[in-house]
Amino acid sequence: MGSIPIVSTMATAVLLISCPDKPGIVAAVSTWVASVGGNIVHAEQHTDPEDQMFFQRVEFTHADSVEIDTLRAGFAAVAANWSMDHSLEALPWRPRTAILVSKPLHCVADLLTRTTYGDLGLDVRAVVSNHDGAAALAASHSVPFHHLPVGEGQNARAEQEAKVSALLDSLDLDLVILARYMLVLPPHMVDAWQGRMINIHHSFLPAFIGANPYRQAHARGVKVIGATAHYVSEVLDEGPIISQDVAAVSHRDDVAELTRRGRDLETVVLARAVRAHVERRVLTWNNRTVVFG
Amino acid sequence: MGSIPIVSTMATAVLLISCPDKPGIVAAVSTWVASVGGNIVHAEQHTDPEDQMFFQRVEFTHADSVEIDTLRAGFAAVAANWSMDHSLEALPWRPRTAILVSKPLHCVADLLTRTTYGDLGLDVRAVVSNHDGAAALAASHSVPFHHLPVGEGQNARAEQEAKVSALLDSLDLDLVILARYMLVLPPHMVDAWQGRMINIHHSFLPAFIGANPYRQAHARGVKVIGATAHYVSEVLDEGPIISQDVAAVSHRDDVAELTRRGRDLETVVLARAVRAHVERRVLTWNNRTVVFG
Amino acid sequence: MGSIPIVSTMATAVLLISCPDKPGIVAAVSTWVASVGGNIVHAEQHTDPEDQMFFQRVEFTHADSVEIDTLRAGFAAVAANWSMDHSLEALPWRPRTAILVSKPLHCVADLLTRTTYGDLGLDVRAVVSNHDGAAALAASHSVPFHHLPVGEGQNARAEQEAKVSALLDSLDLDLVILARYMLVLPPHMVDAWQGRMINIHHSFLPAFIGANPYRQAHARGVKVIGATAHYVSEVLDEGPIISQDVAAVSHRDDVAELTRRGRDLETVVLARAVRAHVERRVLTWNNRTVVFG
Amino acid sequence: MGSIPIVSTMATAVLLISCPDKPGIVAAVSTWVASVGGNIVHAEQHTDPEDQMFFQRVEFTHADSVEIDTLRAGFAAVAANWSMDHSLEALPWRPRTAILVSKPLHCVADLLTRTTYGDLGLDVRAVVSNHDGAAALAASHSVPFHHLPVGEGQNARAEQEAKVSALLDSLDLDLVILARYMLVLPPHMVDAWQGRMINIHHSFLPAFIGANPYRQAHARGVKVIGATAHYVSEVLDEGPIISQDVAAVSHRDDVAELTRRGRDLETVVLARAVRAHVERRVLTWNNRTVVFG
Repeated sequence: MGSIPIVSTMATAVLLISCPDKPGIVAAVSTWVASVGGNIVHAEQHTDPEDQMFFQRVEFTHADSVEIDTLRAGFAAVAANWSMDHSLEALPWRPRTAILVSKPLHCVADLLTRTTYGDLGLDVRAVVSNHDGAAALAASHSVPFHHLPVGEGQNARAEQEAKVSALLDSLDLDLVILARYMLVLPPHMVDAWQGRMINIHHSFLPAFIGANPYRQAHARGVKVIGATAHYVSEVLDEGPIISQDVAAVSHRDDVAELTRRGRDLETVVLARAVRAHVERRVLTWNNRTVVFG
Repeated sequence: MGSIPIVSTMATAVLLISCPDKPGIVAAVSTWVASVGGNIVHAEQHTDPEDQMFFQRVEFTHADSVEIDTLRAGFAAVAANWSMDHSLEALPWRPRTAILVSKPLHCVADLLTRTTYGDLGLDVRAVVSNHDGAAALAASHSVPFHHLPVGEGQNARAEQEAKVSALLDSLDLDLVILARYMLVLPPHMVDAWQGRMINIHHSFLPAFIGANPYRQAHARGVKVIGATAHYVSEVLDEGPIISQDVAAVSHRDDVAELTRRGRDLETVVLARAVRAHVERRVLTWNNRTVVFG
Repeated sequence: MGSIPIVSTMATAVLLISCPDKPGIVAAVSTWVASVGGNIVHAEQHTDPEDQMFFQRVEFTHADSVEIDTLRAGFAAVAANWSMDHSLEALPWRPRTAILVSKPLHCVADLLTRTTYGDLGLDVRAVVSNHDGAAALAASHSVPFHHLPVGEGQNARAEQEAKVSALLDSLDLDLVILARYMLVLPPHMVDAWQGRMINIHHSFLPAFIGANPYRQAHARGVKVIGATAHYVSEVLDEGPIISQDVAAVSHRDDVAELTRRGRDLETVVLARAVRAHVERRVLTWNNRTVVFG
Repeated sequence: MGSIPIVSTMATAVLLISCPDKPGIVAAVSTWVASVGGNIVHAEQHTDPEDQMFFQRVEFTHADSVEIDTLRAGFAAVAANWSMDHSLEALPWRPRTAILVSKPLHCVADLLTRTTYGDLGLDVRAVVSNHDGAAALAASHSVPFHHLPVGEGQNARAEQEAKVSALLDSLDLDLVILARYMLVLPPHMVDAWQGRMINIHHSFLPAFIGANPYRQAHARGVKVIGATAHYVSEVLDEGPIISQDVAAVSHRDDVAELTRRGRDLETVVLARAVRAHVERRVLTWNNRTVVFG
């Protein structure tokens, strides 16, 4: 008489899957989730009919007592069976992050403000810059600041790249954000951070690739300007796009005004892309992204 | 010698489901689809955590040889098991439709143009109006036009309503579109067409309910105007919203200009809502909609 | 007793001015308007600080009894004094217009619908096409249709161009609209219609110049698609932009869906540009436009 | 020999005018600007045809040696002649500002970040709050923080209001910004700051007046959410609207997500309104605003 009720609190996990499309995948995944006592709270899937690829994000609750590693081990068999690329992560995920920035501070200021005063779930381990302007900002958010300027001499650029690369490697990071970092990274760094490095470009790519996009936009007389957040890839400004947005402009807006208006786009678009990544909503395929809503 | 290959062409069907949320629903549905040899090409689901309700849209291909009624009979057991409200329909669905309109013709002109020259899959059986301005337009799209004006006398309005109601009943319709029809419908008609009658209101509801929303918007000095497509319900302008959009306006825009700018919103928002309905992407719950993307 | 009141009805005229910027221009123009008994109802001006150029649109009412040609003669002295490029036109201006179209009919259908059932002030004298699909549409708006297909043989294209060119010349037109006309025009035609020929391109230029922009957009994985209305100039898709707009898209949207979504953008953006032109709100300078609001 | 060239540097001033519309105003103003050796660099005007009112913003450069007070004295005669309400101010104008805030800090954090790291020209003299959460934020921007909580007891609210009012009075301010300040102000304060106090409301007014607009928006099932910046007036949430913007939402977005998405709208809309005010682009009339571009 009088049994003590077992109160089981719940944890949340998220599964991201890419694999060749075949009948039965959805049933296989949902059956597995049910088999571990999980309950799917969000599921979205996408099929690319051209490439016959299947993509899915499944968010499910499970008993707190079940470790994420146990779940991972359990799902491995399903994944192997269906030739899946996949990841299984506990939510909320709070990635160890470095933010790289050059002179314009609006993006890094915004990301830090959202982290400190808002609800962007980053664990920011470092602000890194080739200029020293962000030092006070980083300090006011209690984030270590690293000033790694480009020195003089023939190898200055390569030396700075080596220092940045070594620093990032030393920090055991999950994510690197280029928040208006104006130096092009060398291929070895791009490779190393594939799918884990997000850049903000100040145009609606593929328009106005390269330097001074607002100047280019003004010269072309466009009536919309934009910003694009994308994963960094080998070719400059051509990585998979995560988020884009635009704003209307007119003949009254000179380059300075486009630059000013563009800042609001850049901060919001970058924050949106980072949030999607942190919530594990993004898959990439064929230089494109699937961003689940 | 040489066996003749059996070429099996595929048909598409779409399942819409609402039911109390329980673990295992997704697996049950996808297992059923697999059991009839179907292949899920799109699936979206939504869980309302407050009301503990589950919603799903599943689009799947199946062998052409399997009748939709056979599928319906087969799914009935699953539906009963999980207390589902559901529908199962072959795609493309081409609903028998009547369009009601008063004086402004831009919405009906747009819907007919999309049907005749574009790809909006309506089977328009009638254009009905309390004015005669749409006669030539309907004729140019080979659609029967019914002029049902409000006469004079105490019962004129009720008599007109009875005629409209009888006409709609006689046409064996799936869908009624109020494309700027300016007469409020009586409760019995609203009831009869619950979930199958779409109205366009020329404001971003719930702002500016009732008559002359652009005049109201101008008086209030708003900087955005909007349009809202919704299912008609008992309370005027308070039915479940399917689609909304807005446009920026300024002090320069007088009521006439707001009206003119608003027309583009109205046509696009109404067309978008009609398309979502025709593609069977919309579920309603608690006076809100789930619109799958 | 009782003098008969002299009722003077008012007409409206619009002045468009471009000239080197100098102190005193605004005073000179407004003094002239006052000197002819005119009353400015809208005036907008813009100064390009880089090029030191001044642009103005002045809409004013004047006594109906004063002819537009009298006003033109009167303003000529002011214009000469300040080295102005200018035009003075009575409003509403109802330009004689030809619409060129190929297979997709949504833009021409929209322009004709706005002209017939809405308030777009075009005097459409011809619909011209290299295909015959628009014949019934043109007829339903009582507009002459000219089918000028590209024949076979080495000179087929040049022959067709000559016929189109001759037709346009014969119609005494103010405006030519390329409403998804998919043939590139020869330089002599582009020259002849400089500033009087508006094209709609189905991307947010300068992204995706050339053929199949929606296919290009899908391949690049953009999250916004757009449309651009511009004056036609020598270099394909590089003329002065009058209007642009965009819409959000996602991984779910394949090329067919982008194409479908894009149609709403194309019709609205083209209509907006045509309206701005008809209301004489557009000036061009340095391959850019000033579009007064 | 060799005369020393007189280098005259230029200053900028901005004139804001409201008056009954009459022929000749534009000429009078531009003639006056020319008479003081000024050169108009931007001018926009608006005529309200219903109320027969004329509004103008004229930005002009003038010789640095001419004091703004001399210009003011000079223009007084023109203003009297035409019964103008007007103001004449040197640009850039850097208003002495207090920011009031309650618990959510995103708006105040954004305004301070733009002021410190961007180009928003505020001279922030105080951050005032009924909570203490903004203390560190204010300190990190070297702005004095005033914690004025509502105490206990019958008169607690009135006492707090008196303290806030006295503080604002003591600071010799040009502008007060309610950056998500959740206490309704008493009529005497609203009166005192008429036209100089900007509030951000977290809905597209007039929808969802009052408390918990995101909860209201979710309950109504809207597909767009919005934010509205307006001057504070006697009736809650009914003052003249300066800026509004909206974002698309869907059934997937619960109240928490609407709140989160709404924050980006609130910060951007408030910043845009504050900027327009600081650049002296806003005139009010009949509870509406004229916002010159």
